[in-house]
Amino acid sequence: MNLPATVRVVEVGARDGLQNEPTPVPTEVKIRFIEMLAEAGLPVIEATSFVSPRWVPQLADAEAVIQGLSRREGVCYPVLVPNLKGLERALQAGVDAIAIFTAASETFCQRNLNRTIEQSLQEFEQVVAQAKAARLWVRGYISTAFVCPYEGRIAPEAVKPIVERLLEMGVDEISLGDTIGAAVPTQIEQLTDALEPILPKERWAYHFHNTYGTALANVLTALQRGITIFDSSAGGLGGCPFAPGASGNLATEDLLYMLHGMGIETGVSLEKVVAAAQYILGHLNRATPPSHYLQACQCGQGN
Amino acid sequence: MNLPATVRVVEVGARDGLQNEPTPVPTEVKIRFIEMLAEAGLPVIEATSFVSPRWVPQLADAEAVIQGLSRREGVCYPVLVPNLKGLERALQAGVDAIAIFTAASETFCQRNLNRTIEQSLQEFEQVVAQAKAARLWVRGYISTAFVCPYEGRIAPEAVKPIVERLLEMGVDEISLGDTIGAAVPTQIEQLTDALEPILPKERWAYHFHNTYGTALANVLTALQRGITIFDSSAGGLGGCPFAPGASGNLATEDLLYMLHGMGIETGVSLEKVVAAAQYILGHLNRATPPSHYLQACQCGQGN
Repeated sequence: MNLPATVRVVEVGARDGLQNEPTPVPTEVKIRFIEMLAEAGLPVIEATSFVSPRWVPQLADAEAVIQGLSRREGVCYPVLVPNLKGLERALQAGVDAIAIFTAASETFCQRNLNRTIEQSLQEFEQVVAQAKAARLWVRGYISTAFVCPYEGRIAPEAVKPIVERLLEMGVDEISLGDTIGAAVPTQIEQLTDALEPILPKERWAYHFHNTYGTALANVLTALQRGITIFDSSAGGLGGCPFAPGASGNLATEDLLYMLHGMGIETGVSLEKVVAAAQYILGHLNRATPPSHYLQACQCGQGN
Repeated sequence: MNLPATVRVVEVGARDGLQNEPTPVPTEVKIRFIEMLAEAGLPVIEATSFVSPRWVPQLADAEAVIQGLSRREGVCYPVLVPNLKGLERALQAGVDAIAIFTAASETFCQRNLNRTIEQSLQEFEQVVAQAKAARLWVRGYISTAFVCPYEGRIAPEAVKPIVERLLEMGVDEISLGDTIGAAVPTQIEQLTDALEPILPKERWAYHFHNTYGTALANVLTALQRGITIFDSSAGGLGGCPFAPGASGNLATEDLLYMLHGMGIETGVSLEKVVAAAQYILGHLNRATPPSHYLQACQCGQGN
C-alpha cells in the first residue's frame, strides 16, 4: 500500500465545528479550546470567522478570540474572511493567515453566499491581493466539490477552472470540500485525476465530512494518490446539531486513529486532541459525542 | 480504481446485531425483520443462533424463528452453531446452512468460548463433518482476526493456520472478523497478502465493525484486492447498547451507500434495508440509530 510517511492535519473545530452549534460558547472557552488544540501539536488551527455576526452569531466574538489567544510558536491560525470588510476586521485584529471560500456548485453558491461563483471569485481577487500585500498566508475553500445538496454530483470539470482561478490569485493552499459528506472514493479518484496536472500536492487539501460514514475511505483514497493535507474537527463538531451523534466534519481523533494505526506521522497527540474535544463538548448541549473514537471511549474501548 | 463489479452482502443483523441487545424482541418481530431483509434482496441472512439460551437469552427462540420464517427462494439463512448439541437442534429445526466460529487470539478464544483454539477446531471438525453429511452449507467465522482486546494486534501468521484447518474441514466460506472494529486498512492489506495463496476469493468474506470509523476504508482496501463478500448489519445493530449511537457492526445501509455510489452492484434495495432497519429499531430502546445513513435521514439528508 503506497502511503505517505507524514500528513498535515488542519484543525477546523473552532470555526467550522462551532459555527452551527446553537449553544452559545463563552469567548474564554473558545480560546482555551484552541490553546489545547495547539498543545496537542496541531500545526494549523482555524480559529474563527470574520463573517457578519448576523450570519454566524456563534462567532461574533472573532476579534476577542484572536486577541485573547496565546499563540504557539510555529502554529498557523487562519480565520475565515468573506469579503474586503472581513479582511479589514481580520487585519485590525492582527491575524497572520486567512481562509476564503467559494463553491463548485452555482446553486449552492447563490443560496449560501448570495452571489454567483464568478462574483465570489472577483471579490476574492481583491481580498487575496490585499492579504498578500499584508503578507498573510491564504487558504481557499471550494465547497460542494463533489456533491451539491441541490444539484447532485458535481463534475470534476466544474471544479478545475475554480482551482485555476484561485491559484492565479496566489492562494497558498486549496481545500476541496465534501460539504454534505456524500462523496464516495471513486469521486475522490476522479477529482484527483482532473486536478493532478494543475494543483501541486503541497498546496492540496481535502475536507471531508462523515455524514454517510465514507470520510476515512475517502481519506485513504487520497492518501494513496499522494495527498497529505486533511481537514478535520476535534470531537467531530460541525454535524447536524439536531441529530444526536450525527457526523458532520470528519473527527480529528478518528482521522488520527487511522493515520497513526497505519504508521503515518502527524506530530499530533491523539490523547491531547481527545482532551480538547471533551473540554469543548462539555460546553455544548450534546448527549452523544459525534466522533467514533469518543463513543468507543464511552464503551471502555478507547486506547 | 480497480473494483469488482458486484458484491455479495451477508446480513448479520438478526443474529450478531440482536444478540447483545438488552431489550427483548418478540419472535414475530424477528421473523418480520428477517422477511423484510429478504424482500430487500439480501442473498444471505444469518437468522439466529443455536447457542445455549443461558449465554444469549435474546436468541433463545431460535427454533421458533426458523420454523416461523417464510423462506424466500434463493436466499440462504445460516444459523450460528457452537457445538454438536447446537447442530442437532439446528438440524431438527430444519436449517439449510450453519455458521461455526473460532478466534485467532488464544486469550479471546479462552475467555469467550471457554476453550483453546485447538479445542474449538476439534469440536468443529465433527460439527462440519455432520453438517456436510446433512448437505448443509457451512460458514466459518474467525473472530479477532486483526486485533484482540486482550492481546492487541494479531499477526496474519496466526490467522493463516486456522484458515487452513477450516478449509480442510470443508467449510464453504470463511469470514474474517474485526471483532472490536479496531483494524486499519494496512492490516486488511497484510492479512490479504498472507491468505491470498490459500484462500480462494469466492470463499473469502470480511466482517468489519465500525467502532473507530474505519470499516468502509477497510472495505475499500479489500475491494481493491478483489474481495467481494462483506458482512454487515441492518441499522448498524450490534454496537455497544450502552453508548447511544456507538457503532458496532458496519451498517448494511452504510455499506450499500458506498458500494452503489461507486457503481458496484449488490442486488439489494437500500430503501428496503432502511425500512427493515427502522422496523427493528422501533422495537429496541435506542435513542440514536447507530448507522450513519439513518442519522443522515434524521437530518433530512437521506437520499
